[in-house]
Amino acid sequence: MSAKVRLFVDQPLGAAQPVPLTREQAHYLFGVMRLDVGAFVALFNGTDGEWQAEVAEAGKRKGILVCRTQSKPQSVPPDVWLLFAPIKKARTDFIVEKAVEMGVRRIVPVQTAFTNSERIRQDRLQAHAVEAAEQCGATFVPEVGDLTKLDRLLTNWDSTRQIAFCDESLVGETGRLPDAPGPWAILIGPEGGFSEAERTRLRALDHATPISLGPRILRADTAAVAALTLWQTTLGDWA
Amino acid sequence: MSAKVRLFVDQPLGAAQPVPLTREQAHYLFGVMRLDVGAFVALFNGTDGEWQAEVAEAGKRKGILVCRTQSKPQSVPPDVWLLFAPIKKARTDFIVEKAVEMGVRRIVPVQTAFTNSERIRQDRLQAHAVEAAEQCGATFVPEVGDLTKLDRLLTNWDSTRQIAFCDESLVGETGRLPDAPGPWAILIGPEGGFSEAERTRLRALDHATPISLGPRILRADTAAVAALTLWQTTLGDWA
Repeated sequence: MSAKVRLFVDQPLGAAQPVPLTREQAHYLFGVMRLDVGAFVALFNGTDGEWQAEVAEAGKRKGILVCRTQSKPQSVPPDVWLLFAPIKKARTDFIVEKAVEMGVRRIVPVQTAFTNSERIRQDRLQAHAVEAAEQCGATFVPEVGDLTKLDRLLTNWDSTRQIAFCDESLVGETGRLPDAPGPWAILIGPEGGFSEAERTRLRALDHATPISLGPRILRADTAAVAALTLWQTTLGDWA
Repeated sequence: MSAKVRLFVDQPLGAAQPVPLTREQAHYLFGVMRLDVGAFVALFNGTDGEWQAEVAEAGKRKGILVCRTQSKPQSVPPDVWLLFAPIKKARTDFIVEKAVEMGVRRIVPVQTAFTNSERIRQDRLQAHAVEAAEQCGATFVPEVGDLTKLDRLLTNWDSTRQIAFCDESLVGETGRLPDAPGPWAILIGPEGGFSEAERTRLRALDHATPISLGPRILRADTAAVAALTLWQTTLGDWA
């Protein structure tokens, strides 16, 4: 009865709850995956945990599942955000995927002085986050924000949320993540680093701390995983 | 005089040392990158650090550079190996790239019971490691070993090198990396985890320790970066 297919649905889940499928979901389950009435699918919606649901009606363009048993309680990652400067499409997708696996509450693409990307497809990145959650067994899907200018982000920042920023220029320095609980955000600089003005502004903030990721230069996607590992181990749920 | 192109060469480097180029290197520097006599290129060979070398002769299929100044001393990462079960091509390439950035001495693809990949192109992975080093500014290129069966690897293992193994089945457990200096290897299990027999064998080894990478299931490439972050912070050169 353990389902092989895992699907995010934008529907309430609970005991005996019927879940109507969208056209795309019905096509995927019954057309692509060839499931039929009586088959089981694992469902999650980001708030009600994971449920094993049975196919009750299977049509070409529609279908209904019925929740049978809860297979995972809802879990929410610790309160850390990932802020990153978008890079090439494949690596941006990768960062979103890694953030979901590593466990973050929110993902915010940030436009810095040296960010090449002028715009992103927020809806595409959000869909990518959903897909990553489907694949890694998470019950939570972080929201992906719109591309925000770093200056504006810092101006409107709630200073109770601390920022750990990682910057190429810190290679070899010994910035450690402080063992200070509370909400955090990890900010990964663009390839090429922050501008001098950005670095000065970040360093002047009481609620921002530079952290070092060792003596070698890391790509942005590697830096995201490494910084989140440090955070999860020091302050998050890997402790 | 800071070179924009960075190239691995299989030649000795040192003050005033002439460096003959291969046909492919000449094509890349003079055909693709359009460099000419007098231009500078950063060279490294894995043992002599990084040198700024000047183009002395530039031909279609050949050329000579001359080393002028050393721009980085040779650095060698701490003594940690990455052992991993190859997965899909793109992700295998990715793991090799990440291992180079994170700093390992050696990369060994391992065939486990649940490894789908029957073979790998060792030469292609080695070339990928060179390329990753060129891009991340490293002066060292880890050797990529041949695909080795896990059973044989463990039978011939030098037990003075400890093994930290990461396994999906440890999700939620609290295996910590011991603060024990000396040579180490990180072993990343395949997607689907180790077989029961493999897990039993690993757990029975005095020199092997299971480590946990948090409560969420990580893909193999994410796990490699996360485990190396823990190792570099605890025992390596991030301390």
